[in-house]
Amino acid sequence: MRIILCGFGVVAQSFSNLLESRTHDLYSKFGLKPRIVGVFDSKGCAYDETGLDLKKLNKIKKQSGTVRAYDKSIRQISGKDIIENIDADVLIETTASNYKDAEPGMSHIISAMKKKMHVISVNKGPLALAFPSLMELATYNQVMLRFSGTVGGGTPILDYAKNSLRGERILSFQGILNGTTNYILTNMAEGMSFDDALKDAKSKGYVEADESLDLDGLDAAAKLVILANWIMGKKVTMPDIMKKGIRKVSVDDIKNAQKNGSAVKLIASCDKELELTVSPVEIKINDPLCVNGTLNAISFTSEHSGTQTIIGRGAGGIETASAILRDLIDIRKEITKS
Amino acid sequence: MRIILCGFGVVAQSFSNLLESRTHDLYSKFGLKPRIVGVFDSKGCAYDETGLDLKKLNKIKKQSGTVRAYDKSIRQISGKDIIENIDADVLIETTASNYKDAEPGMSHIISAMKKKMHVISVNKGPLALAFPSLMELATYNQVMLRFSGTVGGGTPILDYAKNSLRGERILSFQGILNGTTNYILTNMAEGMSFDDALKDAKSKGYVEADESLDLDGLDAAAKLVILANWIMGKKVTMPDIMKKGIRKVSVDDIKNAQKNGSAVKLIASCDKELELTVSPVEIKINDPLCVNGTLNAISFTSEHSGTQTIIGRGAGGIETASAILRDLIDIRKEITKS
Repeated sequence: MRIILCGFGVVAQSFSNLLESRTHDLYSKFGLKPRIVGVFDSKGCAYDETGLDLKKLNKIKKQSGTVRAYDKSIRQISGKDIIENIDADVLIETTASNYKDAEPGMSHIISAMKKKMHVISVNKGPLALAFPSLMELATYNQVMLRFSGTVGGGTPILDYAKNSLRGERILSFQGILNGTTNYILTNMAEGMSFDDALKDAKSKGYVEADESLDLDGLDAAAKLVILANWIMGKKVTMPDIMKKGIRKVSVDDIKNAQKNGSAVKLIASCDKELELTVSPVEIKINDPLCVNGTLNAISFTSEHSGTQTIIGRGAGGIETASAILRDLIDIRKEITKS
Repeated sequence: MRIILCGFGVVAQSFSNLLESRTHDLYSKFGLKPRIVGVFDSKGCAYDETGLDLKKLNKIKKQSGTVRAYDKSIRQISGKDIIENIDADVLIETTASNYKDAEPGMSHIISAMKKKMHVISVNKGPLALAFPSLMELATYNQVMLRFSGTVGGGTPILDYAKNSLRGERILSFQGILNGTTNYILTNMAEGMSFDDALKDAKSKGYVEADESLDLDGLDAAAKLVILANWIMGKKVTMPDIMKKGIRKVSVDDIKNAQKNGSAVKLIASCDKELELTVSPVEIKINDPLCVNGTLNAISFTSEHSGTQTIIGRGAGGIETASAILRDLIDIRKEITKS
């Protein structure tokens, strides 16, 4: 299976390592023989129709910060040109999420689907801004659009709700979908000020370059859009989410919650009327949803199986890479079926 | 799809109600048209090759405590004879679990598979005592043997580990798999004595008729056998589990745990060396696994996705019935494939 990788940050590098370390296993278990035929980052590209040498690729990236030096003899072309001109079966989109125009990810995905490539996106931007129309485009072009890594990182939240609960109608859900704000709120509950907690989270590398994505609830809202479309069949996009971040959560709010046996959490929720909101909410300490640190958690309430909670790390390079691999295995399975 | 129901207790009645209330939906969504053609409980049976009237069946059971009076004109025959003589596609085994000889469930399942019927079991006994050989028998007879409801009730723990984590190697897991002992230990943590906590659990109907199944860890061990076989590919049965129940957990043990920021929980675990044990263990209060009341929880640690925890009610008639339905939908899907 020929793959084009858009972006070569932490997730994409972890994915490339994962492919390399599992070459034999992937072939013997799933008949999967992935070849990365093109990759680009913000500074350059590398491509080879017979498949790039992943060890070399990772080494070059580490040394020089870009894949550009992989093969000095090839002509440097744009990401767009790679997608247009190199034949591949699957595009994996890993560039940074933005919620203004979702570029360049949006263009990558659209170009790829028009070229009949299947797409795996861990970039939430395009899905948050245009989930319904991207799905239509995928259907129209008879390709698969997968995005397991966008919600919950390596924790298969989307898959659980869609597949493990098949035959069950999910009535509502609520989740802690952003680990950074959970980390900040957890530290505040232990006595830190918002500013100190934010500083600490930054020092640990938990905060997005644009901190607004975390603090103002954009990241959580994007995940809510994806869940609402995929699980509840609601054709919504980012502007349909009522959202409020954690900047105004005061130490007093947190103390009040503690008096009630609760903690303040940034909750993304879809209630029984299918209202979609992201907002700080008091959650009872003994509710399974009430997890601390950078953990993510989501509780689904279904018609007959009661409320079920899944908890896991919501981010991380290798975890998200494992979600991409899951999608790739699925695509491979679907292709061989038809 | 023609179904024989073995046993007509809470779970089977909930299942029958579920089928009745979802007749249209099951047909339109899954092409599933289930007909219960035979049912028996300890006092009698009812059968009709064109399908029993489920409303009437539930009513009769409620009134008389048995299905025997459903149709006084039919000859009363044994459960064994029903399985031998009535044609059906799926056998659903819901009689009570026992871990001595697993009868009568074991005979029901074996007879059905030999007659080329698919089997759904929520009875843990046969699986606990003979998982590997029952699986072989299913393979030999080219039938499916499913058991989603045996672990986690309506919470799809088995499915999650097997399907949602596909492509991931699970290295170890540990879980609270018995809600009754969790309820007792939770009450003890709040100051009750073991005897009072047990009495309270009994008054709420949480304790099995044979209390040893809960208190001595047999129920948890049976679930561990199923998980170890299904998820880890270990061909084990009940005697392979090292088990210790909660009868000897003292108030002092619980107080000591609290001093360490922990709680005592009856943990079923498969560690990295694949050692299988059921035993009271101290779990940190802030570990997502540390749930209270009758909740079940299980944490899987996989190679690349870290540790993930699923929490839900582990029992309940309607919840377990929903798991049976999930299995039935799967069987229907597999049949139409081939």
